[in-house]
Amino acid sequence: MTFEFPMTDRDTLLALNQAFYRAFSNRDVAAMAALWAERLPVSCMHPGWGALVGREAVLASWQDVLRAPSGVIVRPRHERVMLYGDSALVLCEEILGNAVLAATNLFVREDGAWRLTHHQSGPMAQPRAEVERPDDDAPPPRLH
Amino acid sequence: MTFEFPMTDRDTLLALNQAFYRAFSNRDVAAMAALWAERLPVSCMHPGWGALVGREAVLASWQDVLRAPSGVIVRPRHERVMLYGDSALVLCEEILGNAVLAATNLFVREDGAWRLTHHQSGPMAQPRAEVERPDDDAPPPRLH
Repeated sequence: MTFEFPMTDRDTLLALNQAFYRAFSNRDVAAMAALWAERLPVSCMHPGWGALVGREAVLASWQDVLRAPSGVIVRPRHERVMLYGDSALVLCEEILGNAVLAATNLFVREDGAWRLTHHQSGPMAQPRAEVERPDDDAPPPRLH
Repeated sequence: MTFEFPMTDRDTLLALNQAFYRAFSNRDVAAMAALWAERLPVSCMHPGWGALVGREAVLASWQDVLRAPSGVIVRPRHERVMLYGDSALVLCEEILGNAVLAATNLFVREDGAWRLTHHQSGPMAQPRAEVERPDDDAPPPRLH
């Protein structure tokens, strides 16, 4: 497969972010492990949990998540890329069945290649369109 | 005030993270604004909400949060610093009254100074010590 134009960092980061959710949906432990940095510090905050720090702890948690028999498809949407030279955020929403989560994915260049170094996701209030009373102007609950 | 030893990046980042929660607790809009990057892309995910992108939108959201008459003190704990050259994560837990949240704070060097570029926080399941049934070994609920 050849490309007419070289991929930009933004293209690469969006493709890696898609690969992350494809590995998640496909329960592909090897593909998930390949996305995370090998030597840079890595960390992960699963919904409802505190920080896991270190590649071993993070990948062990993903093994648990991916081996759980949920069969749920995880689909990203509304991706935004924020570039900071050798690091970059991909922000997105995650659709898991009826739940919508907001996610931060941090990628950092390691030996010239973008690798995932941090993930946090947390539940979002239901979007207006999915709320039963569309004329209810009350904002979603906020803890901050 | 003088220091015997120069501050390391880690010291500086922990101090900035403390300053973030001090501005939050003190409802200090100017101190909060001063922490965020001026020119680098900035973004914020308040608990339950999607991504706010851009300094104007992010600071407007903090003005709303800080002007709300909650009077709550926000205290960080279990801070972890992950350094990536010119960017760095400070991960921590946020104590807000009875709630505990997990937070990602991304700092990036702008004109040589560390500035906040992204914040996400989301609710954590209650720590074991605060659960009414300490012999209940059920893990907290997880969406992943």
